[in-house]
Amino acid sequence: MRKIPVMEIFGPTIQGEGMVIGKKTMFVRTGGCDYKCSWCDSSFTWDGTGKSTLMTAEDIILKLKEVGGEKFSHVTISGGNPALHKGIGELIYQLAELNIETAIETQGTIWQDWLPMITDVTISPKPPSSGMDTDFEKLDVFFEHLTKEQASLKVVVFDDVDFGYAEEVHKRYPKIPFYLQVGNPDALTTNDQALLSDLLTRYEWLIDKAVAAESMNNARVLPQLHTLVWGNKRGV
Amino acid sequence: MRKIPVMEIFGPTIQGEGMVIGKKTMFVRTGGCDYKCSWCDSSFTWDGTGKSTLMTAEDIILKLKEVGGEKFSHVTISGGNPALHKGIGELIYQLAELNIETAIETQGTIWQDWLPMITDVTISPKPPSSGMDTDFEKLDVFFEHLTKEQASLKVVVFDDVDFGYAEEVHKRYPKIPFYLQVGNPDALTTNDQALLSDLLTRYEWLIDKAVAAESMNNARVLPQLHTLVWGNKRGV
Ligand code: SF4
Ligand code: SF4
Repeated sequence: MRKIPVMEIFGPTIQGEGMVIGKKTMFVRTGGCDYKCSWCDSSFTWDGTGKSTLMTAEDIILKLKEVGGEKFSHVTISGGNPALHKGIGELIYQLAELNIETAIETQGTIWQDWLPMITDVTISPKPPSSGMDTDFEKLDVFFEHLTKEQASLKVVVFDDVDFGYAEEVHKRYPKIPFYLQVGNPDALTTNDQALLSDLLTRYEWLIDKAVAAESMNNARVLPQLHTLVWGNKRGV
Repeated sequence: MRKIPVMEIFGPTIQGEGMVIGKKTMFVRTGGCDYKCSWCDSSFTWDGTGKSTLMTAEDIILKLKEVGGEKFSHVTISGGNPALHKGIGELIYQLAELNIETAIETQGTIWQDWLPMITDVTISPKPPSSGMDTDFEKLDVFFEHLTKEQASLKVVVFDDVDFGYAEEVHKRYPKIPFYLQVGNPDALTTNDQALLSDLLTRYEWLIDKAVAAESMNNARVLPQLHTLVWGNKRGV
């Protein structure tokens, strides 16, 4: 049984982003990432400031039940990049046996054979502002294996260059549901009021960009709801 | 050709609510409603303060193109209760011919044979705080004809009694995707800052309620995004 490095397990709360926005869910956050995005809002998963615990699928399910009781039927696996960990396949399998739906988010750099077992797979390739380069051939693999019913693309946009990148991604995979997401410019600030106002201004800017662009006629434009409600607080 | 009373046509903008939240769309708002909800945020469609224009499906499509140009591929029909108007069937049909997807929102009191032609149908029965009574037999008709892929239920919740009503609705139609939505307590205020803060407080309250209720394990909990961004401004 392969163990999974787990940073935190919390919930139930709501999914704040993407294709299942608003959904009541538990979160399992895994440690480690093959990227180092400049604006990463969960850098504690890979920069050494956080501590992970190696857990089996059974350990994780026990902990989910301890924390969430009977009050959940959906689990979101986030990171870091959860696709680093082979052991997640066993977790997904066991959750499915319990009739618990699953969601995952990954930047789309590492394919795993267990990904098609997941109900909702969000692939979030990173735009230029992150400082990372997209390997589109690796990304292609995801859409050769996942259906358009279970997968979606989500691109965080901070500026015009990022928006151009988002257009490129959407054009490459036109049938995959496509989400534009507002970037969080300061994942550390505790000034919730200033952050909220900044995020709403950025959201309006992103809506204007999408509205003006014929290329985005099929897109969805979303904020991060949890950041609007709770700022940068963790574990909510 | 039956004409449709149209209050306003605007966009593209984003859908702020429900199953296609964030989606880039045009809006066609029809006049008239068989309800008079106490907190209706579009009472100008039925209380005599707004003016409608009788339009054919062709008129509406011309106007959509005049306003939205090539910058849309999705049209949302809202009201009032758009299901009052037989003529919408022709509009939906013509939009489908143009490869334009459609969405509609109705409280679920009047069935129309053209509803299954619509891509996304939001049924929003009204909770006790609205002052309206739900005729569940009429509501049942909707779910006898619509698939769970195209339909969703959305209940606005202002208080504990509304939440109990939401539980009852969700339980009656357990397979239909279910959305809890924050109510807007003051659809007239122009104090955007106070409204925003009130709406976020209410959203957090509603999340807490859903999180604590096993009955809501499969629900999605959402705010109205347009109200967070633009307050009560119309036509955005
Ligand atoms: S891919 Fe995600 S977790 Fe990894 S560094 Fe980038 S934002 Fe952070
Ligand atoms: S059903 Fe909708 S449009 Fe009609 S009165 Fe109620 S809130 Fe207003």
